[in-house]
Amino acid sequence: MAEQKPQVQCRVRVTRGEDIALGPGKMQLLAAIGAAGSISGAAREMQMSYRRAWLLVETMNSCFLAPLVETATGGRAGGGAQLTVEGQKVLEGYEAMMQDVERVAQRHLDKLLSNSPLAPKTGVAKAPDESN
Amino acid sequence: MAEQKPQVQCRVRVTRGEDIALGPGKMQLLAAIGAAGSISGAAREMQMSYRRAWLLVETMNSCFLAPLVETATGGRAGGGAQLTVEGQKVLEGYEAMMQDVERVAQRHLDKLLSNSPLAPKTGVAKAPDESN
Repeated sequence: MAEQKPQVQCRVRVTRGEDIALGPGKMQLLAAIGAAGSISGAAREMQMSYRRAWLLVETMNSCFLAPLVETATGGRAGGGAQLTVEGQKVLEGYEAMMQDVERVAQRHLDKLLSNSPLAPKTGVAKAPDESN
Repeated sequence: MAEQKPQVQCRVRVTRGEDIALGPGKMQLLAAIGAAGSISGAAREMQMSYRRAWLLVETMNSCFLAPLVETATGGRAGGGAQLTVEGQKVLEGYEAMMQDVERVAQRHLDKLLSNSPLAPKTGVAKAPDESN
């Protein structure tokens, strides 16, 4: 088995009180709605229920002053949906943030691992570890 | 109720294959071991079982070439534990990374929210939302 390279995984959420206004799941959904042209198509793409996708859209729309997603006439029944200009701006702003965040984290990680190298990966059985 | 300010929450993990070499939980445990002088004291502080804390330490120690935590003679039975020089370096490197990551994310968030303001928080009942 080839040596596995360490990977850095970054998550950024924006919360207000108990609401999550922005996060990786919501931003992935926004991108999927933009690509699919409907909430139902985006939900299928993300393997979530239509109801769940619709609730996430409602939360995003109610968090921001201007809605991020607009549904066409026909609405819930399947009239299609698209990102508003505001939705496009928020998605692009989030993606720009993640690019910068990942670049900064990777730079630190490279330095950290050059000072404190990882052990070569061995085939030894390990204790289960579902934590971070 | 006072207006709630949006907060940015960042998480960075370093993975290799299925192992999580570094993450917020492990780094909090390292800091707690440094403060408590033992794995059992750190586990109590973090309200996790001794067994779980010990497994997390084992994972960290096996991920790095040099161990991050050393246990004194007496070992598992309660002889105390402390961070090695390597452990201290990794903890400080992780904390420096998180400071930079949070600063970058906050700067992007400020810009994003000045372009796309959040709605004033209202008392309207909302759909449950446990997603991100």
